[in-house]
Amino acid sequence: MRKAKAKMPDTRVMYVAGDYVPMAEARVSALDAGLLLGAGLFETLRTYGGTPFRLGAHLGRLRESGNVLRIFVRETDGEIAEIIDHLVEANPGLSGEARLRITATRGELEAGLQDDEAPPATLLVTAGPMTPYPRQFYETGATVVVSDIRVNESDPSTYHKTTGYMANLLALRDAHRARAAEAIRFNTKNRLAEGAISNVFLVRDGRLLTPPVQDGLLPGITRAAVLELAAEVDVPAEQRTLTVHDLMEADEVFLTNSIMEVMPVVRVEAREIGGGKPGPITRTLADAYRALVARETGMARS
Amino acid sequence: MRKAKAKMPDTRVMYVAGDYVPMAEARVSALDAGLLLGAGLFETLRTYGGTPFRLGAHLGRLRESGNVLRIFVRETDGEIAEIIDHLVEANPGLSGEARLRITATRGELEAGLQDDEAPPATLLVTAGPMTPYPRQFYETGATVVVSDIRVNESDPSTYHKTTGYMANLLALRDAHRARAAEAIRFNTKNRLAEGAISNVFLVRDGRLLTPPVQDGLLPGITRAAVLELAAEVDVPAEQRTLTVHDLMEADEVFLTNSIMEVMPVVRVEAREIGGGKPGPITRTLADAYRALVARETGMARS
Repeated sequence: MRKAKAKMPDTRVMYVAGDYVPMAEARVSALDAGLLLGAGLFETLRTYGGTPFRLGAHLGRLRESGNVLRIFVRETDGEIAEIIDHLVEANPGLSGEARLRITATRGELEAGLQDDEAPPATLLVTAGPMTPYPRQFYETGATVVVSDIRVNESDPSTYHKTTGYMANLLALRDAHRARAAEAIRFNTKNRLAEGAISNVFLVRDGRLLTPPVQDGLLPGITRAAVLELAAEVDVPAEQRTLTVHDLMEADEVFLTNSIMEVMPVVRVEAREIGGGKPGPITRTLADAYRALVARETGMARS
Repeated sequence: MRKAKAKMPDTRVMYVAGDYVPMAEARVSALDAGLLLGAGLFETLRTYGGTPFRLGAHLGRLRESGNVLRIFVRETDGEIAEIIDHLVEANPGLSGEARLRITATRGELEAGLQDDEAPPATLLVTAGPMTPYPRQFYETGATVVVSDIRVNESDPSTYHKTTGYMANLLALRDAHRARAAEAIRFNTKNRLAEGAISNVFLVRDGRLLTPPVQDGLLPGITRAAVLELAAEVDVPAEQRTLTVHDLMEADEVFLTNSIMEVMPVVRVEAREIGGGKPGPITRTLADAYRALVARETGMARS
């Protein structure tokens, strides 16, 4: 426990399977299949001006993955929206921006590997302060490394945001040790896949390029939004298989996820991208994303 | 809840982070990194005549993996042995055989991906009845399928028994749907790796063959015991890279894990192995394994 916090009572609450409980007291069954077998899914998203951005898309992905992986969330979309509203209100300092995490596990299962029972999912929702990435990452661009840890495109769980996040954590750890923001991963056939916690976009000759889902990536909600926006700002966009050569020779590179939004990359390992400065199409799409967020959440544009 | 059990009070207890608690009330923090990020490890093993087999080897593997994956179990080996003794005594019907599961997670972490803190691991231990595999699997041999889900040999977590078990569950589900006992997995370079929940051995021309760890497998405790026993019973054994051809052309095939022990395989997909009967070297090693267990645990030989 950090000393500076020890004197303040912790008043934060979270949602756990039907109840609002103080975070310090929040518990789940020790026999939960999420805990014992990694049978869990999660979504991370932001609120802007108190409103979650694209909650419907996040919950749609959660439910589609749940149908494949047998994780059946009983709470309706409307109920989850109410839970989020309650958490944003009940927790201090979240009326502007908040970071949300929605976790659903397969629920309580006694030890063993039986796959023929599906109890109702255990749903957990937290709302906390948004700790933004360093401003310089956006202004002067981030550095990334290439990860040795391949994405396993033959594993169905690759395409779902499961709580089995160890490979992602290890890839990210390697990036952080190299003082880089993210680790870029390739699949087992040397095709560009995704970052440890983000999707990857390239710009080449004025075209926006990103790998297709089947090359081994999580279909990001921000990725989908950026592909929509490209059409809106008249940047031709294509999902196609990309190699390390494409990455190194790109005019621009950027990353997306719901927390980082659009983050320019100016260095891949020792290789400078775009003369070491965030490129114009990246800037255009980052601005368009912010405008989209403002439009959809009603947030006053910053 | 199953109706037949509803009238009996559930008196089973488990160990959760320092306490013995009724299983129905056992809880962990909803912010545990094992639950949220799959930052967990586990061991499954058996007791024979009340004594766990090769507990030291299981705990050694747990700690070695924990050093790599930052999961630091505070309980000593002696304390864990006492926990197991207590659970075997306190739970009904476990004085003969029991199935043990030891789970360790990275402990409570607030949401996020910070990797610079390592709270003490959350340790969970359960002891339950041994539900053996069907006797016919041992007598007439099991059928296995070849899984489409490759093992990712580039992922460091492949070599550790993490709770991120989704790919294993999916592979096993495919096997069960085909009424097979296990799914055999290859790595991304088409090399034989392991079963979804077991290690794989072949016999060819009187030699025992099994893939080396670096081909993408968990170094099983039973696998190690069988390699020791091969020397004892004068069967030449070799760890070497194997292909699907080697598997299909084998004279004998068998699987190992701590629960199934040595299980003969007589069919791989539609291909019959060894004339459809468990082979002599498999039988010899299965008997030798049982003798080893009896010797080390003091169990009366069955």
